[in-house]
Amino acid sequence: MIRIIEGPAVKRSLSTLLLPSQTAIFISKSHSTISSPQANHSKPEMDAAQEAHNREAFRQAVVNTLERRLFYIPSFKIYRGVAGLYDYGPPGCAVKSNVLAFWRQHFVLEENMLEVDCPCVTPEIVLKASGHVDKFTDLMVKDEKTGTCYRADHLLKDYCKDRLEKDPNLSAEKAAELRHVLAVLDDLSSEELGAKIKEYGITAPDTKNPLSDPYPFNLMFQTSIGPSGLSPGYMRPETAQGIFVNFKDLYYYNGNKLPFAAAQIGQAFRNEISPRQGLLRVREFTLAEIEHFVDPEDKSHPKFSEVAQLEFLMFPREDQVSGRQARRIPIGEAVSQGIVNNQTLGYFIGRVYLFLTQLGIDKDRLRFRQHLANEMAHYAADCWDAEIECSYGWIECVGIADRSAYDLRAHTDKSGVPLVAHEKFLEPKEVEKLVIAPVKKELGLAFKGNQRMVVEALEAMEEKEAMEMKATLEEKGQAEFHVCTLDKVVTIMKNMLSISKEKKKEHQRVFTPSVIEPSFGIGRIIYCLYEHSFYTRPSRDGDEQLNVFNFPPLIAPIKCTVFPLVQNEQYEEVARRIAKSLTAVGISYKIDITGTSIGKRYARTDELGVPFAITVDSTSSVTVRERDSKQQIRVSVDEVASVITEVTDGVSTWGDVLWRYPTHSS
Amino acid sequence: MIRIIEGPAVKRSLSTLLLPSQTAIFISKSHSTISSPQANHSKPEMDAAQEAHNREAFRQAVVNTLERRLFYIPSFKIYRGVAGLYDYGPPGCAVKSNVLAFWRQHFVLEENMLEVDCPCVTPEIVLKASGHVDKFTDLMVKDEKTGTCYRADHLLKDYCKDRLEKDPNLSAEKAAELRHVLAVLDDLSSEELGAKIKEYGITAPDTKNPLSDPYPFNLMFQTSIGPSGLSPGYMRPETAQGIFVNFKDLYYYNGNKLPFAAAQIGQAFRNEISPRQGLLRVREFTLAEIEHFVDPEDKSHPKFSEVAQLEFLMFPREDQVSGRQARRIPIGEAVSQGIVNNQTLGYFIGRVYLFLTQLGIDKDRLRFRQHLANEMAHYAADCWDAEIECSYGWIECVGIADRSAYDLRAHTDKSGVPLVAHEKFLEPKEVEKLVIAPVKKELGLAFKGNQRMVVEALEAMEEKEAMEMKATLEEKGQAEFHVCTLDKVVTIMKNMLSISKEKKKEHQRVFTPSVIEPSFGIGRIIYCLYEHSFYTRPSRDGDEQLNVFNFPPLIAPIKCTVFPLVQNEQYEEVARRIAKSLTAVGISYKIDITGTSIGKRYARTDELGVPFAITVDSTSSVTVRERDSKQQIRVSVDEVASVITEVTDGVSTWGDVLWRYPTHSS
Repeated sequence: MIRIIEGPAVKRSLSTLLLPSQTAIFISKSHSTISSPQANHSKPEMDAAQEAHNREAFRQAVVNTLERRLFYIPSFKIYRGVAGLYDYGPPGCAVKSNVLAFWRQHFVLEENMLEVDCPCVTPEIVLKASGHVDKFTDLMVKDEKTGTCYRADHLLKDYCKDRLEKDPNLSAEKAAELRHVLAVLDDLSSEELGAKIKEYGITAPDTKNPLSDPYPFNLMFQTSIGPSGLSPGYMRPETAQGIFVNFKDLYYYNGNKLPFAAAQIGQAFRNEISPRQGLLRVREFTLAEIEHFVDPEDKSHPKFSEVAQLEFLMFPREDQVSGRQARRIPIGEAVSQGIVNNQTLGYFIGRVYLFLTQLGIDKDRLRFRQHLANEMAHYAADCWDAEIECSYGWIECVGIADRSAYDLRAHTDKSGVPLVAHEKFLEPKEVEKLVIAPVKKELGLAFKGNQRMVVEALEAMEEKEAMEMKATLEEKGQAEFHVCTLDKVVTIMKNMLSISKEKKKEHQRVFTPSVIEPSFGIGRIIYCLYEHSFYTRPSRDGDEQLNVFNFPPLIAPIKCTVFPLVQNEQYEEVARRIAKSLTAVGISYKIDITGTSIGKRYARTDELGVPFAITVDSTSSVTVRERDSKQQIRVSVDEVASVITEVTDGVSTWGDVLWRYPTHSS
Repeated sequence: MIRIIEGPAVKRSLSTLLLPSQTAIFISKSHSTISSPQANHSKPEMDAAQEAHNREAFRQAVVNTLERRLFYIPSFKIYRGVAGLYDYGPPGCAVKSNVLAFWRQHFVLEENMLEVDCPCVTPEIVLKASGHVDKFTDLMVKDEKTGTCYRADHLLKDYCKDRLEKDPNLSAEKAAELRHVLAVLDDLSSEELGAKIKEYGITAPDTKNPLSDPYPFNLMFQTSIGPSGLSPGYMRPETAQGIFVNFKDLYYYNGNKLPFAAAQIGQAFRNEISPRQGLLRVREFTLAEIEHFVDPEDKSHPKFSEVAQLEFLMFPREDQVSGRQARRIPIGEAVSQGIVNNQTLGYFIGRVYLFLTQLGIDKDRLRFRQHLANEMAHYAADCWDAEIECSYGWIECVGIADRSAYDLRAHTDKSGVPLVAHEKFLEPKEVEKLVIAPVKKELGLAFKGNQRMVVEALEAMEEKEAMEMKATLEEKGQAEFHVCTLDKVVTIMKNMLSISKEKKKEHQRVFTPSVIEPSFGIGRIIYCLYEHSFYTRPSRDGDEQLNVFNFPPLIAPIKCTVFPLVQNEQYEEVARRIAKSLTAVGISYKIDITGTSIGKRYARTDELGVPFAITVDSTSSVTVRERDSKQQIRVSVDEVASVITEVTDGVSTWGDVLWRYPTHSS
């Protein structure tokens, strides 16, 4: 669940927004080729504009290659496309399949998760309960003459950035103000946004017409289920709700035992007002979500020790607020020091780190950033985003949140079906129980329409707070009480509730489990992977730059190519024989029997990220070339499929096989 | 593309509808247990009502097991569900993953297809071009007082069936009439359906209120793209259009060479008026579609010889019309005799047969039924459905159609982007070309709004027809001409067009490829597989019937279970060690350390279709039990993961390993 309250905006930490000069460098000077941006915080001499330009150039090189080689295609291109919708073409689709297969292996299989598959079409009541119908909105403004819609925060952001970058007469004071607006942009209310837009005289970008006041637009695609038109439905904005509504059955399936995790991979939909940032902000995307249900009183994890030693960039709340940098912290330490709320959350952060780096994400451009207090929903216990740095900045790709009991409670309330777990006691326990009994009649008279919110807030009091209120009521006859859902303080009179402690014999504990939710934006991860995998190198004669994606074999869309060195029937026959043996062991390959030079054929497939090339230059043995080192070995025709299997399945590395077979120099 | 013209109804052949007594028997008398229905056409003594009852009982047994073990779950159950939406629970989701992985291996990898992944949200123009906006409808009637909607054909069908089954006073004449209505049900026009409903006095089933006239209801879920409300969109009713609109890029990706195939797996949506038949007719489902593009002048297939010897039940058009049964025909013969239109179509029929039977579909309850002339779209060259027999009758699960150039032409026309292929000649060819030049002005005057349809039909004339018309026009000054899109004959005057032959030098041939489309309804295949895999057998003490799904290891949701024979720390430690080694090789397992009797634990997992059970009864070696034979072997702890891998990956059969290891009797 990628924060529904704030809408699906890509969040950047305050420090990133405020300190643009500290972000990555995109041109590697030493090689004078476009290279993948490395985390490099040591060249303050390069100014922000040059850096932005380099980012753009790098991104263009990547995106051009991706589009030309059909990693992705703007959807419905022959009809001029639809903003925010993209197809995965053949290599992109293969990369996606590989990422998802690895996700299943790494999470579902490794942790014995219960994978489910729920529909995208969702009836209104479910999304009413989850809060999406009421709160899953972005603020929109309309061109008052043409009716064209814009995201209010985007316009304000563009205005501030633009003036900061291009206005030479900007006073230091004004610049500080604009930077402040950028920093607090996500926290502005509808009224505040509207006021700023008015104050700065911002108009519609295309026409310069005046703009309407901001108003909320629900980001869900709405539809109607069945022919009557009376059953509104939505395309799900996330897959998680499908798991929550099935909690009872899944708990039963798991033998009525906690903890357990359910997982789901599927499409989700967000009807963005104005999609931007290419593949990062789209209207339909694949999510992979895990809901790990735990006893709120025991969030330890039996396998935590397996990840505790891992050390990677973490960016705790305090460090962000005080303007420090992300720093390497062993996850074991982060948990023991209370930076990360609990072991289970920490375990998943560690597992996510392993997942992303094994895919090929550069560990120096990956950090785990904790949500600031104002970013987090009020019910969340803790929340960390795996952010990956790419040419667009630090992008939230995985959210890992401890959502406490919020979701299961919301569906319990709305459906009337208790989504709870039971812990049977070995023998009955005598317990002292806090009983908070609101007198609804009195509360109704006092608070009218707000009664429900007040009642809920009273019932949700912790023991300490309740006992303090009891004392105050007895002493003064009334007490001040903060109702967080109303965000105001109300006065509670003595006749409005009774608070007591009762002794009871209990045979079991009934409770709503907490849920810890790692949620993966698969498309975003893949896009960042593309940027991290891309580099260029000069061609043999040095007169052009060749593109390479250095995907690990696990992820590469095609595992190897088969090239007969020259066009002749004998070699082609050998090539077909090898192709057949590759199919038999499930290795995807591409066969290229054109007469093009071998160098050109290598270059073509380097650009697709194919890790190994088999060149048929005799009928008994062939050469196998590794993409990045360009090293070649000679392997017999009969053995070659099994060698390729070994190095693509990860049983051996290229280094291993290099020792075993004679090298070949072309 | 599962026939858009007739709507997505499950078609049954006329003979099935007319001869209910020839369908399958569902109780195996010899074992007096509920058994999977075998194709058995030799017990005419069992009457239709008893048979229907048996089907129901069998289905109930399967469905109860499926639902209890969470193979599927009615979606949003805690909110009382939504008709036609189902979740796959953990074992169902695993079966689906396995089916899709095998589909990729069997089709995409084996044939080097170009897999793509396009969004579900589709702008109106695309589905306007494909015909879905105008024609993807079912006829609906409304309860005139309550507004409740029903499918018109369902009401008529229910009425006819009901009277045939329950009216003892039915005259032979009336019975014949009702049977005739059932047989032609799918061909009735809106007016004919309305007339029959009136004639029979059919009222709303729930209220007995009068019904409205039938009117078309579009089966697509409609939505709106972006915030303006001005861009209508739909949830795609099939995945195929995403491939067609990308033809140009995919052809380029394939080196501008034909033939090639593109494939897509994804969700599709149909807003059914009143979903029925459980998992078979749903509102959201997974399709796996292949679009194989070929030169219309050469539909041979290089690998046809690999399937030509396969022999299975085929049901050609002529046999259906003349009331014969489906019969075994080698696919090579079916193609050479012209029963199947071409080699490529035949090749895919053969490959589909292999796919389904390797999944575990009973080959005796699988047939390939050719579409009747009136079932097929006018542009289709030939069409065969893979139908699987289950308790609902013969169900269309895969459609394999030669759709000629229809789809690419439709998108070429609408988008203005030519979706064509080129064949370069080695040297320029002198060709005589037919030139049909309609005089649009004259045609416009004569046909007004129909002008475009007339022009298109004239331009589409084959050479022979055109030359005949030319002769007629020259002789008589006018000619009669059938315009299929208008379904009427118009008179063409001599001044309305010129027909001539011109000699030209051509350097290449430009043509619209034909497309051969195998389209798989994954959910339907899986449901039929459940029925074909289900059987019961008595428990050891004989006092209850135990359920078993005999899935092949390839498809089984969980490959093996690990049971410590008794609860003790030593055995549990061994069990955990085995579990770890299974995870390492990617084998899904379930570990059960409850103290339940071993027999009960076997029974629990037989019901999930788990093929192998490892029982830990010592610290050095364990027993491995095969589900269906209940045979057991002893294998050392260190070897057991590799033995399980061998038999689940299909490297060895159970028979093979039975020879290698000592058997164990419990």
